[in-house]
Amino acid sequence: MSLNSTVKALVFDVFGTVVDWRSSLIADLTRWGTRRGVTADWTRLVDAWRAAYVPSMNEVRRHPERGFVVLDALHRQALDRLVVEQGIEGLSEDDLRQLTLGWHRLHPWSDSVAGLTRLKRNFVIAPLSNGNVALLTHMAKHAGLPWDLVLSAELFGHYKPDPETYLGAARLLGLAPEQVMMVAAHNEDLRAAQGLGLKTGFVARPTEYGPLQKKDFKAEGDWDIVARDFYDLADQLGCRGG
Amino acid sequence: MSLNSTVKALVFDVFGTVVDWRSSLIADLTRWGTRRGVTADWTRLVDAWRAAYVPSMNEVRRHPERGFVVLDALHRQALDRLVVEQGIEGLSEDDLRQLTLGWHRLHPWSDSVAGLTRLKRNFVIAPLSNGNVALLTHMAKHAGLPWDLVLSAELFGHYKPDPETYLGAARLLGLAPEQVMMVAAHNEDLRAAQGLGLKTGFVARPTEYGPLQKKDFKAEGDWDIVARDFYDLADQLGCRGG
Repeated sequence: MSLNSTVKALVFDVFGTVVDWRSSLIADLTRWGTRRGVTADWTRLVDAWRAAYVPSMNEVRRHPERGFVVLDALHRQALDRLVVEQGIEGLSEDDLRQLTLGWHRLHPWSDSVAGLTRLKRNFVIAPLSNGNVALLTHMAKHAGLPWDLVLSAELFGHYKPDPETYLGAARLLGLAPEQVMMVAAHNEDLRAAQGLGLKTGFVARPTEYGPLQKKDFKAEGDWDIVARDFYDLADQLGCRGG
Repeated sequence: MSLNSTVKALVFDVFGTVVDWRSSLIADLTRWGTRRGVTADWTRLVDAWRAAYVPSMNEVRRHPERGFVVLDALHRQALDRLVVEQGIEGLSEDDLRQLTLGWHRLHPWSDSVAGLTRLKRNFVIAPLSNGNVALLTHMAKHAGLPWDLVLSAELFGHYKPDPETYLGAARLLGLAPEQVMMVAAHNEDLRAAQGLGLKTGFVARPTEYGPLQKKDFKAEGDWDIVARDFYDLADQLGCRGG
């Protein structure tokens, strides 16, 4: 059976795959700093903030007895530490909350909205992200992402690449793993999904980390689809344009 | 603070409030029966099927040790029993599955889609239904319901009116209960939500049960909003038309 008759739903990694978190967050915080009169190297802050992401999730994974901690809270914990480390001064509680909400206001890559809109005609489309439900919901409204539903690590009490996330998504969708395609700009995400029986789609986002990008310039696995962007993904999955 | 500045999200009961399950399911099964050459009193089947709904959820509630059972499975169990009781013959396994999926193909009331589209401009909108995630997702695609995300009893392992559903919805939305309005055509649903601190909106759907309707002809509580339909709800919440 062909791929586009087997697959019923596409689930998307979000940070880096659907939205350009780095450029948008640097721009967002720079604007905010100018307006608020707060001086900082916002690029340095954003890069360090994102670098805290994987270690903070590993901490959650290592301490199940503390319960699951959503990404908004991990972002806030990391920010509290980084403003001290980077000597950013004069931030109120409300400022820290506003900065953390910057992760809810990320901009999509230029092909994301139109590509998803085409894919939505033939497939159920959803994020499958480590972002919490509220973050993903606000982001979708802000960026115009036309999800059919929001799937999040928060629903499963596990962060990707834990198996509970990929298998939980298939279960909630009422589908077998092979009826779900994980779409990501990250080879590791796809490797985990493929190992559990999901189909895989790779879309390179070689500027995700700006000058700090070290990997994921290209597909490094036997993925079912390798696409240039979401338009190309839609073409390869037989979703018509226009 | 006014209602439309306090409330950030509207969560909707679905069966009866957003979709006209009875008329659409009777029409759907009648068409299907004609095509398949299966004779039955489809109206009688649909009414008995819906009558099995509350008892089947009560059974799940009484037996937590069996685990949560999604509504698709409860629908199917009830159907298996009802086709025997009503002497409907000649149904294959695939037929029974197709009939059960009739609950995924329900039609919205005439004001639902346009009303939700207006409400979506100012609020996060989601179902908060006893339907499972896949059912609600398919229904939204079929009926054009423009949800921002899908909230379902399935996510909480509890059926409404259990408190876990209303409080779980607020938690996933990152909101306090009073920032969430439950919208329903059923006074009991609103009573449970109000008791937990949610705001409440009542929209009468006096033809939901057809000639069998016995209650919910009008608001029977001190609800924050009582609206004629979703247009009126949008008007009262300050969402502009057009």
